[in-house]
Amino acid sequence: MTAVLPRAGRDADVLFDPSSVAVVGASDDESKYGNWIAVQALRMLGRRPVHLVNRRGGTVLGRPAARSLAELAEPVELVVVAVPAAGFEAAVDDALAAGARAVVGITAGFAELGAEGRALQQRVTERVRSAGAVLLGPNCLGVADSTTGLTLASNPLPSGTVSLLSQSGNMALELSGFLTGHGLGFARFASLGNQADVGVADLIRSCTRHAGTELIAVYCEDFGDGREFTDAAAQARRAGKPVVLLTVGGSAASVRGAASHTGSLTSDSDVIDAACRAAGVYRVATPRELADLAATLRQQGPVEVRRVAVLADGGGHASVAADVTEAAGLAVPEFSARLSAALRRELPPSAGVRNPIDLAGAGEQDITSFTRVLEVTLAEPDTDAVLMTGYFGGYREYGERLGAGELATAHRIADLVRGQGKPVVVHTMRADSPAARALAERGVPVFGAVEQAARALALLGSAPAPEAPAAVPAPAEPVTDDGYWSSRALFAAAGVPFPDGARVTTAAEAVAAAERIGYPVVLKAEGLLHKSDAGGVALGLSTADELRAALADMHARLRAPGYTVEAMADLRDTVELIAGVRRDPRFGPVVMVGLGGVFTEVLADVAFALAPVDQAGAEQLLRSLRAAALLTGARGRPPVDVPAAARVVATISALAAAHPEIAELEINPLLAAPGRVTALDARIVLADD
Amino acid sequence: MTAVLPRAGRDADVLFDPSSVAVVGASDDESKYGNWIAVQALRMLGRRPVHLVNRRGGTVLGRPAARSLAELAEPVELVVVAVPAAGFEAAVDDALAAGARAVVGITAGFAELGAEGRALQQRVTERVRSAGAVLLGPNCLGVADSTTGLTLASNPLPSGTVSLLSQSGNMALELSGFLTGHGLGFARFASLGNQADVGVADLIRSCTRHAGTELIAVYCEDFGDGREFTDAAAQARRAGKPVVLLTVGGSAASVRGAASHTGSLTSDSDVIDAACRAAGVYRVATPRELADLAATLRQQGPVEVRRVAVLADGGGHASVAADVTEAAGLAVPEFSARLSAALRRELPPSAGVRNPIDLAGAGEQDITSFTRVLEVTLAEPDTDAVLMTGYFGGYREYGERLGAGELATAHRIADLVRGQGKPVVVHTMRADSPAARALAERGVPVFGAVEQAARALALLGSAPAPEAPAAVPAPAEPVTDDGYWSSRALFAAAGVPFPDGARVTTAAEAVAAAERIGYPVVLKAEGLLHKSDAGGVALGLSTADELRAALADMHARLRAPGYTVEAMADLRDTVELIAGVRRDPRFGPVVMVGLGGVFTEVLADVAFALAPVDQAGAEQLLRSLRAAALLTGARGRPPVDVPAAARVVATISALAAAHPEIAELEINPLLAAPGRVTALDARIVLADD
Repeated sequence: MTAVLPRAGRDADVLFDPSSVAVVGASDDESKYGNWIAVQALRMLGRRPVHLVNRRGGTVLGRPAARSLAELAEPVELVVVAVPAAGFEAAVDDALAAGARAVVGITAGFAELGAEGRALQQRVTERVRSAGAVLLGPNCLGVADSTTGLTLASNPLPSGTVSLLSQSGNMALELSGFLTGHGLGFARFASLGNQADVGVADLIRSCTRHAGTELIAVYCEDFGDGREFTDAAAQARRAGKPVVLLTVGGSAASVRGAASHTGSLTSDSDVIDAACRAAGVYRVATPRELADLAATLRQQGPVEVRRVAVLADGGGHASVAADVTEAAGLAVPEFSARLSAALRRELPPSAGVRNPIDLAGAGEQDITSFTRVLEVTLAEPDTDAVLMTGYFGGYREYGERLGAGELATAHRIADLVRGQGKPVVVHTMRADSPAARALAERGVPVFGAVEQAARALALLGSAPAPEAPAAVPAPAEPVTDDGYWSSRALFAAAGVPFPDGARVTTAAEAVAAAERIGYPVVLKAEGLLHKSDAGGVALGLSTADELRAALADMHARLRAPGYTVEAMADLRDTVELIAGVRRDPRFGPVVMVGLGGVFTEVLADVAFALAPVDQAGAEQLLRSLRAAALLTGARGRPPVDVPAAARVVATISALAAAHPEIAELEINPLLAAPGRVTALDARIVLADD
Repeated sequence: MTAVLPRAGRDADVLFDPSSVAVVGASDDESKYGNWIAVQALRMLGRRPVHLVNRRGGTVLGRPAARSLAELAEPVELVVVAVPAAGFEAAVDDALAAGARAVVGITAGFAELGAEGRALQQRVTERVRSAGAVLLGPNCLGVADSTTGLTLASNPLPSGTVSLLSQSGNMALELSGFLTGHGLGFARFASLGNQADVGVADLIRSCTRHAGTELIAVYCEDFGDGREFTDAAAQARRAGKPVVLLTVGGSAASVRGAASHTGSLTSDSDVIDAACRAAGVYRVATPRELADLAATLRQQGPVEVRRVAVLADGGGHASVAADVTEAAGLAVPEFSARLSAALRRELPPSAGVRNPIDLAGAGEQDITSFTRVLEVTLAEPDTDAVLMTGYFGGYREYGERLGAGELATAHRIADLVRGQGKPVVVHTMRADSPAARALAERGVPVFGAVEQAARALALLGSAPAPEAPAAVPAPAEPVTDDGYWSSRALFAAAGVPFPDGARVTTAAEAVAAAERIGYPVVLKAEGLLHKSDAGGVALGLSTADELRAALADMHARLRAPGYTVEAMADLRDTVELIAGVRRDPRFGPVVMVGLGGVFTEVLADVAFALAPVDQAGAEQLLRSLRAAALLTGARGRPPVDVPAAARVVATISALAAAHPEIAELEINPLLAAPGRVTALDARIVLADD
């Protein structure tokens, strides 16, 4: 699916501001989608011509309906097709004949049902493309743009600055509710459907160009060309329009689910995470998280958050918020003596001033304590963000005077935090109070539960700006031999260090090689996927006799086409690594590193990145392993040569990128030691086709 | 703090249903707590006599106030003391003289401020106890009981079946809001304050006896006698009144916070988790989680949940719910062919029936699909619980007829799931709809966000019923020598296997010992905390000469009082374990096990349990380690003797329980191999006093 726009002047922008619109399949039957979308379409009258088409003619929704697009006197720029599948192809032909530059295919029953539907969908798509038009869908729910007054979806949506590209209608509806709760709404909405022509990447690019869009929200199960998605999302982020992604694939169950309802090809969750890191995309797990993060991003933009100051008006809330914030993956570090002293000057002796800050009654005594404490805290470099938690908004329950002070304080807080670059989020048990509403209206995110506030900050800190991607090498001469010696030779030629070795086929060659290399040596049989398990490796052969005996034994058992004689590796102070690249059907080559043996197999301590990575990227990946301390000198070991290991990882990642015919490659183990690394194995799996 | 009730007939029940009440410090000043609580107290008039006491007499809140309790004509059973700290002691004396059986100490300024306050608090507490009365607080916010109409807290609270014991007033207020959202409320509320006399364990016991209490919610920072807490909570759970605990200590920041505002002595979060496991206590992280779990527990009681069926009306919701449920730690396994076939018979071909279930439009077509699918799913043994997610509650937006059907379906769902033992929780984007409210009112927990529904089920599955605790051994003859040889001897006498060895002080003794044991041997110096680091261990000594040289060298450097000669351990196929016991100030001896070396130090792969544990408990603990697969034969290793390792863990846990003078003991490493375990070290740290 999804070749990516443009092809000769086509772009997705026309979907969002057509000069005229027709709805084919408009209906008076309230159980039909063609009715719902026609109702919404008619809201645009006065803004742009809207034509209703129904093959029976007559009137629809009290307005005259054309029997076909051919009956219309003037060309139509955008045509919504909401007819049964059998009539889809003809309707699209009519639309193109009527001059349509954009077709929105509501009709379902194509690629999501199997091969036949896929063929029909492809045929129609080609026709749309040849005509220089674009197709959204089919099997989609419509399109809307509050900045151009376009209402071609089944439900009215609240206006705002978030553009949503969604493969699910219900997710859009649910998100709508959560956004509204934060005073947010939609700039654009596009239902992705089957993405036969226009895909999620095209729409991200269009929204990046769109002045009314500040944030791009995506619910997507199938990424199409994943590299296009990554590229478009990174560009959006750089243009100040961060992409927030809700997707599936975190469990076998969700993959089953996605396969069952759209036939989507889902990617491994680790791969999606790698793509998100590469593109600076924020990944959330639920619609509420998406809205909570959108509200938090709106405040100061995509800033990085690690150290959080907790400001509470009671001890219980202070401690619970601190625990929840750290559990969310952020730090609540003790303040510097300087900041603590500055806070002490503002607060009574019973207050806590070391982080968490506990006003301990100072709020009731003087409601401006909140503002003063915030001002002092934000001015110091100790923290990246403030989480305020507790009763704020409820002080009016102490009486009118305190209530008025509280509301004024809310205004002052909003003024104080605006544009100073550090996010301030508020949890209050009185989220429906005037003071809380005043904060929210002025852009301070307000949450009714502290875990949502902490999670929103953690999400904000989860997607650093993307770095420039490593250069993708030009395709190299394809390899055709996946044997050990060829693989080793390919890697070695690219710069991966191996022990001295030689390919041999006879005992005489083996002994000659060993004499040159020096005993003890290792003998390996070719042509086995798991050499050690199959008895295809003999270690520590110290004499020519031992080597001959081992070769004879191995050859009797395995009849390998060839053997390799290698120097024994120096195992002192080594850490076993594993490094490999495999090809994801959507995101292409993905590099994986891990600590070898038990760490990979029992603890799944592995890390992923889109390939290729440069050396810095590879080093970052190695250092992100949970047991990375083993590389840098834990337990009194000497630190191993991480840069050299990273060089190997970068090398094989570039190799995989230059060899699309390689489905999978791996070095396991890659021995890392102080001052050196050595690859003890090399494996290539060629793609089936 | 907290000796535990009863002492001669005292119990905490009297706090909740006193025959008469007096408020000392009642005031007309609306900024004072003595005003707020008096306002609430007067709501009880007609139910029980309420006396207001103010040292200035006159009237308070329009009613005559006594100058002192002595002025009252009749005895008073419960006295609330809300006077400044200076007058507290005298007021308590007056209360006891007036016949009070219970004193509620609102007054603050005691143990939480330091040694002087602590002494005063202790003096007053002793007087209350001698009089056979009980004291709640001081520094507390009051007490309430909706089943007896007792209203002695600052705020009115919604009635219900949850009893809350809280060290924070704001937490109680916030929880109140979340409980109300689920149609829940309070049976009892007791503010813990400083727990000078009545502690959290006493109150749990009282609530366990209380017919109106169905669930006991605790917010607590200081557990007092942790074993009493554990014991009381386990009894409550067995009596069908589960305890749900919100506490702090998950981060250094929350410990700082708790220390700053109450001077509480917090326990390590791992220790609290161990106590919760021992007692079948549910631990939550926030007030909202507490309320969500309470609503879920109300439905089917504390059942165990692991395998969840997801029932959605759209593909996006199906997949997102599946991911969120698995991320919460539960399984969404593929259904059996039988269940899938049964569901297929109920649903159109486009529906997903393998788990997640995706109605894919069957909801709109026939709203009773929900009931039929639920019935089929609950009848099969494939699942422990159902999470329903999506649009239910919103179908009325399709028209009146569907709305009526939806409401009727809600009623049928509630009837269907009641009492059949498997929890059914509902996430809907229309939580405020009549159908959703109908579900909630009939006991089906409804959530506005899917992550809350999944988390509630995960929490429900997080606290299996407590097993009978291991017998606590009688105190043994205290040990006084913490040297290696003595520690080794103590452990060995209890049954821990060590390599053959002997204590020596001369080279001749060393050589004689080695000849008996057989070379190679190990030589260890006594009196060093970290023998290996200090050069106090020499391994693999193969001859008498090597042994003499090692001893001479060690003695020249270390001048140790004695040395041990030991057989070299057989290291083949071994896994290094670490096992130890340390004493928590609140919860007493806590046993810790881990995989040795890098797993403990780099990955913190350790597990805790209250000591003593029996062998089954110890084995469970070992198998709970993240890298437990290493013990049972990962990567082609032979499985090690886990039962023998568990026997050692159980042995040292009992040893620590019998030796309160031992602050800490440890075996590191404990070598586990197929068919055997061997302790290679033994360490004891005696308590300071």
